[in-house]
Order: sequence, then structure tokens, then C-alpha cells
Amino acid sequence: MFDANRWTSLIDGSDCPMCRENDAATPDDPALVAAVPSGRILLQDDAAFRGYCILAFPRHVTELFELSILERKRFMKDVTALAAAVHAVCRPAKLNYAILGNQVPHLHCHVIPRYPDDGWWGRPIWTRPEEARAPLPPDEFAGLRARLRDALRDAAGV
Amino acid sequence: MFDANRWTSLIDGSDCPMCRENDAATPDDPALVAAVPSGRILLQDDAAFRGYCILAFPRHVTELFELSILERKRFMKDVTALAAAVHAVCRPAKLNYAILGNQVPHLHCHVIPRYPDDGWWGRPIWTRPEEARAPLPPDEFAGLRARLRDALRDAAGV
Repeated sequence: MFDANRWTSLIDGSDCPMCRENDAATPDDPALVAAVPSGRILLQDDAAFRGYCILAFPRHVTELFELSILERKRFMKDVTALAAAVHAVCRPAKLNYAILGNQVPHLHCHVIPRYPDDGWWGRPIWTRPEEARAPLPPDEFAGLRARLRDALRDAAGV
Repeated sequence: MFDANRWTSLIDGSDCPMCRENDAATPDDPALVAAVPSGRILLQDDAAFRGYCILAFPRHVTELFELSILERKRFMKDVTALAAAVHAVCRPAKLNYAILGNQVPHLHCHVIPRYPDDGWWGRPIWTRPEEARAPLPPDEFAGLRARLRDALRDAAGV
């Protein structure tokens, strides 16, 4: 249901949960793959889509056309390097890239590896009911994050 | 269901429906908003998401990191100009941008305007069942396409 007041405060940034997360971020966040010029790359705890990451832009903007040309180039370079890193580590059959912002309109990009056995092959991941989502084994999460971090360094030249 | 042979021919481009569409494209396609350097912009016939367009890349690639740096910059410039044009004409509350390729992995970007009354507010459009999709009134389609075309010209400076 649309709440006009709530939406206004999300769009103008006066009450943005992602701005709060960015402000509170620390380098020891266990989900942090890397802090790059276009923001923080956070590994999602999702067993089906192993390697799923989100890049959250540092400052509050909501649409691509609000970025300067330089910011846009840098953002898409970072998205592309992230995709290359996820591809190198996880070897998915395909990657999905999405900037939605339907719940939190602060600019962020989902980079989602897709596997033939991920349970939702051929369909966007958002067709999966929330209750079907399962976390990665805890010991796998830390190792995966470390490998993604290394691969991201290798992918910096994209 | 995953069909490995089918998927291989979609990924390597040997049997790609979007390549066939690109090859068969004519300037008098009623859905064509514009042909830009990064491909054809096609208006989708969707009443709920009025102004929904897809930019289909001209040559067969499947991931962002397969583009040259110049191609990527140009592609995202064209995506951004398209978003600015849709925003100027349709005044949505938010835009969604998605490169998925779950059915057809040939690079293409969905630019989807979101409206508080679009019926799926707060959720990705792919949660909508296919049978809930309705076309635009035919007289509106042509007018909308013309306005998007004009607005795209104005947005070329992004």
C-alpha cells in the first residue's frame, strides 16, 4: 500500500534506512566484501543464489540520471567488476543486475548469480516467496566473502 | 526447467531470438521509440507500467563484463537517457532498471516506471502473474511512443 508521506521521506532522504546503514557502517561488518568508490559491496546470506551481492551507493540519490556522468561511469564500473568477481568465484550460468528501489529507493544494485538448480531458474528471484529463502552455511559465508574480495581485486581493470 | 543444450545455444548466440529480432528489425516497427548506438528502444504494451521500455543491445553479448569499456559507457548512457525520458513523460514515483536475461540472455535492459496505483507497488513487477497484464489503449500507445521519442532527444545530454 502506498503511503505518500513515508515515500516522500524515503525519496528525499530525510528518513532513509540505507543512509543510516551507510552512516553506521564499519570495516568489520561480516557481510562487507569491499568498500569501493561507488559504495559498499555486501554479500547476501542466501543459499540458493550463492554469491548474491548488493552495491549500495554512498550518498542519497534515487535515479541513475541524478548521478554525474563521472559517478555513473564509476558506479557501473564497480557493478561490472563485482559481476566479474562473482562470475569468477561462483561460475553461475547467468547473472542478473537490478536497480529497483521499490522498498528503499536509495540507489543500490543487486548482482545475482543464477544457477540451473537455484529453484527459480527462468524466473526472476523475486518470484520466490520470502519464506523459501535459506541462509548459507555459516562457515561457507566467511570463505565466500574472502574469495569474492580477492576476485574483486583481480577484476578492478574492467 | 533447465535444458542445457537450449541454454548453450542461447548463451553462445547460435539460436538467439533477440539476435533474430534485431536482424529483422525495421524502422517502421510500431513499438520502436528510437534506434540509438546501444540498440533499439522498444515501448512495451503494458497498461499498468505506462512507459515501460526495453533497450536491446545490437550484438550478441550476455554479461556486462563482455562489453568494452566504451560500449558499457555508451550502453549506460543510453539506459540513463531512456530513464530520464520516461521520467519526463510519465512522471512515475520511481524507476526500475533490470538486466536479467533469465529467458533470453542476450543483453537488454528493462526500464520500468513505477506508479503508486500500478497494482504491484512495493514489489518487483515480476511478481505479477502474466494473465494480469493488460495492453495500453491502442490510441494511447502511438501517442506515448511519440512523446517518449521527443523526450529522448531532449535527454541525450545525460
